[in-house]
Amino acid sequence: MFSTETYQNRRKTLQQNVKEGVILLLGNSESPINFEDNPYPFRQDSSFLYYFGIQEPKLAAIIDVDQEKTIVFGDELNIDQIVWMGIQETIQAKAEKAGVTETRGFSELEEYLKKAKNQERKIHFLPPYQPGNKMLLSKLLKTSIDSLEPSVELIKAIISQREIKEEQEVEQIQQAVNISNQMHLLAMQMAKSGMKEFELVSAIQKLANDHHARFSYQPIITKDGQILHNHYYGNTLKSGDMVLNDSGVETAMGYAGDLTRTFPVDAKFTAKQKAVYNIVHRAFKESQSLLKPGVAFKEVHRSAAVLIAQGLIDLGVMKGTAEEAVHHNAHTLFFQTGLGHMMGLDVHDMEDLGEEYVGYTEDDPKDTKTFGWKSLRLGKSLKKGFVLTVEPGIYFIPQLIDMWQAENRLKDFIDYEELSKYRNFGGIRIEDNFLITDEGHQLLGDGLISSVDEIEDFRAKHLI
Amino acid sequence: MFSTETYQNRRKTLQQNVKEGVILLLGNSESPINFEDNPYPFRQDSSFLYYFGIQEPKLAAIIDVDQEKTIVFGDELNIDQIVWMGIQETIQAKAEKAGVTETRGFSELEEYLKKAKNQERKIHFLPPYQPGNKMLLSKLLKTSIDSLEPSVELIKAIISQREIKEEQEVEQIQQAVNISNQMHLLAMQMAKSGMKEFELVSAIQKLANDHHARFSYQPIITKDGQILHNHYYGNTLKSGDMVLNDSGVETAMGYAGDLTRTFPVDAKFTAKQKAVYNIVHRAFKESQSLLKPGVAFKEVHRSAAVLIAQGLIDLGVMKGTAEEAVHHNAHTLFFQTGLGHMMGLDVHDMEDLGEEYVGYTEDDPKDTKTFGWKSLRLGKSLKKGFVLTVEPGIYFIPQLIDMWQAENRLKDFIDYEELSKYRNFGGIRIEDNFLITDEGHQLLGDGLISSVDEIEDFRAKHLI
Repeated sequence: MFSTETYQNRRKTLQQNVKEGVILLLGNSESPINFEDNPYPFRQDSSFLYYFGIQEPKLAAIIDVDQEKTIVFGDELNIDQIVWMGIQETIQAKAEKAGVTETRGFSELEEYLKKAKNQERKIHFLPPYQPGNKMLLSKLLKTSIDSLEPSVELIKAIISQREIKEEQEVEQIQQAVNISNQMHLLAMQMAKSGMKEFELVSAIQKLANDHHARFSYQPIITKDGQILHNHYYGNTLKSGDMVLNDSGVETAMGYAGDLTRTFPVDAKFTAKQKAVYNIVHRAFKESQSLLKPGVAFKEVHRSAAVLIAQGLIDLGVMKGTAEEAVHHNAHTLFFQTGLGHMMGLDVHDMEDLGEEYVGYTEDDPKDTKTFGWKSLRLGKSLKKGFVLTVEPGIYFIPQLIDMWQAENRLKDFIDYEELSKYRNFGGIRIEDNFLITDEGHQLLGDGLISSVDEIEDFRAKHLI
Repeated sequence: MFSTETYQNRRKTLQQNVKEGVILLLGNSESPINFEDNPYPFRQDSSFLYYFGIQEPKLAAIIDVDQEKTIVFGDELNIDQIVWMGIQETIQAKAEKAGVTETRGFSELEEYLKKAKNQERKIHFLPPYQPGNKMLLSKLLKTSIDSLEPSVELIKAIISQREIKEEQEVEQIQQAVNISNQMHLLAMQMAKSGMKEFELVSAIQKLANDHHARFSYQPIITKDGQILHNHYYGNTLKSGDMVLNDSGVETAMGYAGDLTRTFPVDAKFTAKQKAVYNIVHRAFKESQSLLKPGVAFKEVHRSAAVLIAQGLIDLGVMKGTAEEAVHHNAHTLFFQTGLGHMMGLDVHDMEDLGEEYVGYTEDDPKDTKTFGWKSLRLGKSLKKGFVLTVEPGIYFIPQLIDMWQAENRLKDFIDYEELSKYRNFGGIRIEDNFLITDEGHQLLGDGLISSVDEIEDFRAKHLI
């Protein structure tokens, strides 16, 4: 946990921003795997962590803005539970570390909310994502699950705090990134023809666990880098393949890292791989250089798209001018994803609070319709203290190519004949994490090799 | 997956047992970690796996007993999803492998059930454990979550099938046990003073992952073996400690292993540790020898309790006769848990269906009140084909000792003064998995060392 003052100050700011009513923050419950008593490893809700720091299931908290009091609701262990779970620090003691002096049994929460409702005070709550918390909110607020209305005021107030990372939060993220860096180097040292993808997953998971960290998301470790959300690890790597490794850890306090590297299974990239890799790498490097306060991330994304289009024009796969191609979204046949997203206590930071608030503003809302652009999670102007990913990529997705080609879509910008040579190329992504600083940006972590030469050189020296 | 006939035959038997109405089986959904799109690794519901074998989220199935038809409900990927998730085998194709020829979109399920309800046909469903499936059932059946009434007929019919393991299921369990055996040997090779508990977790997880298997439950790897459900791995092992390692994997098809070994951090057990260990080991060996069809597991548990009481009497911690001590439940101060449980597609097999049906019968119901006995998950008569664990233990739980001592509880059977010497001793458990055979039982897996000599000898030779 951070210092008591940290949590007190965060809650004080929240209280000031929300102004009136009752703020209800629900902690997470355990999620059953295949029966009630066999849960997945517990992960606390990130907003609950941010304001209270307590890592324990079945808690809720009230910040009563009108009455200026804060209460943590939860049930202390009884003797039966102590027999099974050992003596543990009480909720009372944990709450005190977060500067909360009042704790009550969980069952008292309903009564508290009922009273507030009778007083016609507004009850602010966040959009629930755990099904159990949807049910709980419905019960607590006597509202059907479909009619629950999360508080936009609360959402905005929390985002305005959590999006600006404190120094101690940045330190946590650096830790996460540095462990993640090591995982990436290890995968580069190990990968060779004949190996199964899951052997790489296994090795990097061990490295994470040895640091008492855990994956911040299910890693993507695949020879099929063009499959964007791919959690299958059963393929055998073979000569000529590339490995796309998108993996990161979170620290014990919950702060995430999120990195991607793509490298050849052989000692060197093929000429074709190298050519495409260098396009992505250039977009990766040049996008970073644009990061500073006041720049809209949407424009950084656009400039990455132009660079990718230009590279693919030079390669012969695209045609026309890069600017015009991007204007017509021709680049989205190859770069279907967003350039990056916020990162912090969640790998996609605050995604549960809604992308329309986290990544965009009401004045400049998200384009939710256009292919490619609708996958850009972050569009708004950068501020000092933002932490985000930069992750350009080029992906040759056979099904998507077929669909476009069948319509001869954007044929002025795509050379479908030339493209057919890349149909089974796969996908490349390169991703690092950055902090927006006073005048620019700072790479988080100690840095990880990314150029063709660096990767080939590293693999030549360190392959195990 | 097993053969098409396997699933067809299992469903045919189920249909015959349930006799009439509509059987609704829900698959599992993904469980979010900290936001909707960041899920834990998916695990299919075990009953769904048993009858359909399809490992994919958001499926449901109807076995219409009256109309003799089976339908799998689920949504095929659209092109947008194929772009993100790659081309995959269709639900249609997967269902066909399970012998189901009819698949429909998920949204059609509600209409099907509505119709059946209008025809006043009974809709059989199982007790939901995923909160999302509680919500789904409530919506599908137009019933409040609290009023959902699972079908006892269906529960009993499924238990009657799943409790008798097929040969191919036993093979799967053997695989799981053999990987688990290796994990236990590895932990014994590695553990030494100065090491963190999580380093052992990390190493055995890698071993599991390298076999493309995963933990069947969060392992208990601790120097505090007396804490029965302990998922904390932050302690440093030191000379004089014992490590209790309760861990197992499940195969890719979902079949579990569940083993425990306890061993010293030093080269050898201390004299005191050895004395207590040998009591547990004797109960472990003698309990196994009693396993055969027709024997009530409750009685095997009782005989283990008597052996443990006798051992503790010999040690001086208990007094009186062992039989009488057990009759008064004095052993439950040290042996608070059950001797074992069913195991199969779930590590506590079918626990979601209700212990009262899985482990007991209506004629001979579970004792849900008496401390110790209420933790015995399995009491009923054994049948050929049952797979179960045998896991006696002795645990010195300071809080429990204090509570009993304050009341001077069962002072004729407990020597509290002598006991005070063991207050911080910790806990010991030894656990293996068995199949009930025609005339007796069979140890599952290739066997794992368990005696003091075997463990000390192994550690002397193989410590790394």
